[in-house]
Amino acid sequence: MSFLSKKQNYTMLCDFYELTMGNGYFRRGIGDRKVYFDMFFRKVPDGGGFAIMAGLEQVIEYLNDLHFSKEDIEFLRSKGCFDEGFLKYLEDFKFECDVYAIPEGTPIFPGEPVITVCGPAVQAQLLETFILLTVNHQSLIATKANRIVRAAQGRPVAEFGSRRAQGPAGAVLGARAAYIAGCTGTACVLSDELFGVPCSGTMAHSWVQMFDSEYEAFKVYAEEYPDNTLLLVDTYNVLESGVPTAIKVFDEVLKPLGKRPLGIRIDSGDITYLSKRARKMLDAAGYEDCRIFVTNSLDEYIISDLISQGACVDNFGVGERLITSKSEPVFGGVYKLAAVEDKDGNIVPKIKISENVAKISTPHFKKPYRLFERETGKAIADLICVYDETVDDTKPLVLFDPDYKWKKKKVTNFVAKELQIPVFIGGKQVYQSPDIKEIREYCAQQVGTLWDEVLRFENPHSYYVDLSQKLWDIKQDLLEKGGVKA
Amino acid sequence: MSFLSKKQNYTMLCDFYELTMGNGYFRRGIGDRKVYFDMFFRKVPDGGGFAIMAGLEQVIEYLNDLHFSKEDIEFLRSKGCFDEGFLKYLEDFKFECDVYAIPEGTPIFPGEPVITVCGPAVQAQLLETFILLTVNHQSLIATKANRIVRAAQGRPVAEFGSRRAQGPAGAVLGARAAYIAGCTGTACVLSDELFGVPCSGTMAHSWVQMFDSEYEAFKVYAEEYPDNTLLLVDTYNVLESGVPTAIKVFDEVLKPLGKRPLGIRIDSGDITYLSKRARKMLDAAGYEDCRIFVTNSLDEYIISDLISQGACVDNFGVGERLITSKSEPVFGGVYKLAAVEDKDGNIVPKIKISENVAKISTPHFKKPYRLFERETGKAIADLICVYDETVDDTKPLVLFDPDYKWKKKKVTNFVAKELQIPVFIGGKQVYQSPDIKEIREYCAQQVGTLWDEVLRFENPHSYYVDLSQKLWDIKQDLLEKGGVKA
Repeated sequence: MSFLSKKQNYTMLCDFYELTMGNGYFRRGIGDRKVYFDMFFRKVPDGGGFAIMAGLEQVIEYLNDLHFSKEDIEFLRSKGCFDEGFLKYLEDFKFECDVYAIPEGTPIFPGEPVITVCGPAVQAQLLETFILLTVNHQSLIATKANRIVRAAQGRPVAEFGSRRAQGPAGAVLGARAAYIAGCTGTACVLSDELFGVPCSGTMAHSWVQMFDSEYEAFKVYAEEYPDNTLLLVDTYNVLESGVPTAIKVFDEVLKPLGKRPLGIRIDSGDITYLSKRARKMLDAAGYEDCRIFVTNSLDEYIISDLISQGACVDNFGVGERLITSKSEPVFGGVYKLAAVEDKDGNIVPKIKISENVAKISTPHFKKPYRLFERETGKAIADLICVYDETVDDTKPLVLFDPDYKWKKKKVTNFVAKELQIPVFIGGKQVYQSPDIKEIREYCAQQVGTLWDEVLRFENPHSYYVDLSQKLWDIKQDLLEKGGVKA
Repeated sequence: MSFLSKKQNYTMLCDFYELTMGNGYFRRGIGDRKVYFDMFFRKVPDGGGFAIMAGLEQVIEYLNDLHFSKEDIEFLRSKGCFDEGFLKYLEDFKFECDVYAIPEGTPIFPGEPVITVCGPAVQAQLLETFILLTVNHQSLIATKANRIVRAAQGRPVAEFGSRRAQGPAGAVLGARAAYIAGCTGTACVLSDELFGVPCSGTMAHSWVQMFDSEYEAFKVYAEEYPDNTLLLVDTYNVLESGVPTAIKVFDEVLKPLGKRPLGIRIDSGDITYLSKRARKMLDAAGYEDCRIFVTNSLDEYIISDLISQGACVDNFGVGERLITSKSEPVFGGVYKLAAVEDKDGNIVPKIKISENVAKISTPHFKKPYRLFERETGKAIADLICVYDETVDDTKPLVLFDPDYKWKKKKVTNFVAKELQIPVFIGGKQVYQSPDIKEIREYCAQQVGTLWDEVLRFENPHSYYVDLSQKLWDIKQDLLEKGGVKA
């Protein structure tokens, strides 16, 4: 009953099949067989050219806290299908996996391993749900937020969507992801307290309604917050009442104090028209520096439209369409077995075949690289290699399309950078998540390495994610064999 | 940094403006003025005819846990804009509001007060974000899940979407809402442990890949789970490998034990074709009772299609399209000021006007009723009254359309039931949330009171939500006056 007010143990936030499989592996003596799982995704939301990795910090926190309480064990025992030895194993659970991940804020592309987990089968399988839901959620919101921020062309975008988020974590962690991706802040106080996402806010319509007149409501607000006077002008009528009354209050309350207003906010109506008219009224009254904030079901498309129509907007507040990624609210990351070690310690690559070609996985323990043009620093392509390969960036390299092998591209004068970093080795954390402001700066810098053609909202260039010859050969071989014998 | 592994205080999950407004009210001596807020929504998602109320239990838990810790106060102080007296008020926070709500599982309609909060302005305003996000989220998922369950026409639907949920709470609370609305269970173990939503699960593709052959994988599973043998048959090829191998294992492992298989699961490909062919193969082998489970991006439309095409599906598992309500991932509930008490204790109705007529609020402290036909028990209409009105259901009643007043309907022989129940009075909880199974049964029963025309997925009948004459007059009067003077 108490999901909210008790410390939560997220170890139990798994799918039941992870435990039935774990129990089976355990009983068959293959629970500690070393396996390799990849998290990857297949399609960028909204038809975009790239996604942004986010959520790793919460994955780390989850992994450090992995444990089954006595109550958890009791609950599982009540299911009547688990071996007592397996329950004992869970009770004494000690995390032993290696985890490699692409750092938060990095642009990521379909088909490449974003997170790789190597470890005992029982353990690596158990992590599936939590890793997926966390990285899927935050990458979804970061990807969407970055689109919206880019649409605003330098104007600040604040995240205001808590009330429409899918649950408390959707609000708090969504604000975190949005900030990483370039939003300037949030309305959500808890995201500020926990993660340092700067929160802000001024008044709702209810403030205006609390007073006998809009004038009185504005006057009181300006008197209380003379350094941050931002007035919501659309409770009754923007141009006939809201803006003139705001100007009157700026004149009467702020001017004598030598203060300048922060701005006005419009939350309804025809934003282009209203903002242009409001701008003229403010300028005519000597408030050229008074900013116009706009909220109301905004997203990257509406913001682009507003700007192209010459709307006079200085700041955007974006709610439900960002915090749920409304136009495409699912980030379809999957977690697939890529290899299993045999008794002799050989890594045996595994593939998941599907009639749907896009659903075929790339087998083996892999190492993804990003190749940057040495001169411009721009990203050319990603190259997925087998774990024991190294890319020699002192020599020219021929890349080829994994589906159409005759499509080739010779790259020279490039720098190859490994995309994944080790996060846990043998169950011990070896990587510290950077400060959120660092992640945010890193994200902006990394998005800056992408060509404009990849950044485009519609019909972006399909960034190259290629396989090394060795990995391609292994995959072909498994495909020819049909993966496995029935 | 630790959102997950520490007990969380959700009091701080508010929008910053709730605190700037609260501080202003406090400083102006109107912080304890009694105000009335309504939560209501304007539009049913997916063009449906009704929504389902959910999330009240978590709202109750949140309200009972309202408090600001020393760290919270310190954090707020660091913002530099709050009065010390106000911070002291928050530190000593004692919840004093009355809360009225429509119980979970009830069908709800646009424009009616789902939750009403009456209490000191500072307090009632503070609750806005958490109440909205909780009820918006769970009502969204319950509404979607109920559509999907109805599409399945009696076949069990399980919720399998944790991995694609928007954050941990999206998964755990989403599974709760889906169960209330009629799903039979979830894959999410934590939802079972916390809320008693029955969890289940068997194997992923990784189980099949872990073994040298599909045959071995199936054989081991059947040996380990002879009472729950449900085999995933699409890792390599459903009809050529998966189904024949499953039958072989049923014959070899289960038959000698006198056990019957639970089923097979198909997770990809052309479900209609594959399920029909698989059904024939199973029947021919004497496994007419072996159920066919289907998963893979299902929703109410695809399930309806599958059934109309004669697909042989016995159980559905629904993931991302349910747990995010993918086709419409936002439930647009709002929280608006409806009335304020003046110094003499008179309740003064307040209205929010908008150029967008649909955004105009209904003022005043209200009491919503549902009218049921006495003979059939079917719901006829909802009638929103002023708080001090009573509906006399012993006499005929004339309802009228609030927008087109000449559209009238005389109702006779009906029963009027108040929709809201008192949940908190003077800050004290006076209502216990029923057991989740009771809520689920109540929901099914209440949905059963709706006419088929309201239940329809496309172009449903617009259920009547009317105003009493007294309430209509008050609203008209405020509209004529333009709400307020500038």
